[in-house]
Amino acid sequence: MPAAKKTGQQTLVFRNPPVIVVSGTVVGGKEAQGPLGKTFDLVIDDPYHGEKSWEHAERRMLEDAAKTALKKAGLSQQEIDFFLAGDLENQILASSFAACSLGIPHLGLFGACSTFYEGMVVGAVLIDGGFAEKVLVAVSSHCCTAEKQFRFPTEQGVQRSLAQSWTVTGAGAVILASQGAGPVITHATVGKVIDLGQGDPTNFGAAMAPAAADTIVRHFQDTGRPADYYDLVVTGDLGIYGRELAQGLIGDHGYQVEGRFTDCGILIYDHDKQDTHAGGSGCACSAVVTGGYLLQQIQTGKLQRLLGVGTGALLNADSPKQGETIPGIGHAVVIERR
Amino acid sequence: MPAAKKTGQQTLVFRNPPVIVVSGTVVGGKEAQGPLGKTFDLVIDDPYHGEKSWEHAERRMLEDAAKTALKKAGLSQQEIDFFLAGDLENQILASSFAACSLGIPHLGLFGACSTFYEGMVVGAVLIDGGFAEKVLVAVSSHCCTAEKQFRFPTEQGVQRSLAQSWTVTGAGAVILASQGAGPVITHATVGKVIDLGQGDPTNFGAAMAPAAADTIVRHFQDTGRPADYYDLVVTGDLGIYGRELAQGLIGDHGYQVEGRFTDCGILIYDHDKQDTHAGGSGCACSAVVTGGYLLQQIQTGKLQRLLGVGTGALLNADSPKQGETIPGIGHAVVIERR
Repeated sequence: MPAAKKTGQQTLVFRNPPVIVVSGTVVGGKEAQGPLGKTFDLVIDDPYHGEKSWEHAERRMLEDAAKTALKKAGLSQQEIDFFLAGDLENQILASSFAACSLGIPHLGLFGACSTFYEGMVVGAVLIDGGFAEKVLVAVSSHCCTAEKQFRFPTEQGVQRSLAQSWTVTGAGAVILASQGAGPVITHATVGKVIDLGQGDPTNFGAAMAPAAADTIVRHFQDTGRPADYYDLVVTGDLGIYGRELAQGLIGDHGYQVEGRFTDCGILIYDHDKQDTHAGGSGCACSAVVTGGYLLQQIQTGKLQRLLGVGTGALLNADSPKQGETIPGIGHAVVIERR
Repeated sequence: MPAAKKTGQQTLVFRNPPVIVVSGTVVGGKEAQGPLGKTFDLVIDDPYHGEKSWEHAERRMLEDAAKTALKKAGLSQQEIDFFLAGDLENQILASSFAACSLGIPHLGLFGACSTFYEGMVVGAVLIDGGFAEKVLVAVSSHCCTAEKQFRFPTEQGVQRSLAQSWTVTGAGAVILASQGAGPVITHATVGKVIDLGQGDPTNFGAAMAPAAADTIVRHFQDTGRPADYYDLVVTGDLGIYGRELAQGLIGDHGYQVEGRFTDCGILIYDHDKQDTHAGGSGCACSAVVTGGYLLQQIQTGKLQRLLGVGTGALLNADSPKQGETIPGIGHAVVIERR
């Protein structure tokens, strides 16, 4: 009987851990000016990226991230088995057009801002399950497309509440492979959708914190690992207030993550100087911080074991206006230095 | 060395074919009045389903379909490893809320109207790969939520072009399992996004036909099978005109599918009497026809081997107005009587 590939209720165990052979990260000017500015591959200062609309710019950034990863890996599109992608545009349109341009068999994913981590989960399953040799995972978000779709006309410049996050402009991609050099994905914990009744669309951190905490606690329970097994636990885009809430909820279950728990949305901006309020958000937030800074920390040995948790707020532009609450989800992936 | 789980460029081979142990189908009144009316589990005549909005009705139909499948299988939510779901609402909101209510670890998918087949692909990968014992796949669409989102205010009653399709109101679910009795999924061909420049949002059939044909031809090439290996090749929602276009494109590649090629959108309505123009569409179209009529045909031995192809038109409400074309995608799944 083969060794189990699932442990506990929600955690997958990869017996031949897929390798993150390469990443590709593209960001806008604001992200490049932040503390992680030097960790990204490509900076696009013009929010239009030379295109006629922000949507076209986002699409092109997604393609740029994918192509950067392919170039760094020395691979052509034809050598990739599957392209897994998603974004925040209605009906993930940026991903569909990027998939069309790349011409790689495509599975569209939607987990809101958790999509990059969802993609790594599905990609690792395809590879460890023996269905693929190489999978390209990519996501994007664009501050201007997200603002106009979910909040207010961008040109209106509406004042932002202090709990609000700033959508990261950019795109991140990774190539997962069955062989090669690089950090490996050893486990994944697929999240449940959790709704504690938060309905304020200007405070995604509070909406997502319960789901993030649930997935993290479930991961510790499923694997039997103590919190200090990991050098760092990092969520996707809870931001300053959401991270604090999640830390409390995790502590309530007896797991102390203080001092080793941060968030990609906190890392990406200098919040005092850049006026980004709660922090960064968007699909690209966890993608470019994971694909850039965090993978580099693992590659240089500064981190050995990372528990990354993509987080998503599950709403659309209409739902809060119709009185809906905002459920959240979190998908965790263990990335280890090999 | 284990037997390959991928053949050709795009086709997965399931060595321990996942079993479709049960399905759950929910439809609205119009679908119940069509020629397949008797093949569905549950009919909801009221488009509001007793809820305060069409969105709530759709969400509840999705839950109904999932719960019907669970009940028929004699399983509780806790016995399901993963819930894979998607729908046409912006940011797949019906699926997110259904996932929240069901409390099963969740992966959100988006392939427009191909999402049910995409879900069967990912579900089969999880099971054959050894990551899950039981996976619940479900999708929904609702004529009233789709109309108001993608086309015109429903109450306006805008006249419909003859090439336009009618969004199926309903939801379909299947439970895939590593063991049990029922039809099995032996292969899956993951589609590429194809765009031949069709940009008319009142003619989805023409937008999707090239992608459907591409996936079908690729499936025949990858497996080396002739077209008559299958008793039936059935697409998701190409409709009357899209089916004809696809048949021609498949024929151009030397595969003759005449007489064994139909479409769920053609099967579900009596187009003359029900005034449904090109045919049915929406995520639920392929889901309820596959989960109802087609699985029953396999179970009773009238069909032995089915090539089902979920088809999706990749647009959002804004994209055609912004001058975008409408790329399509098709995902194929082989379902065989065992």
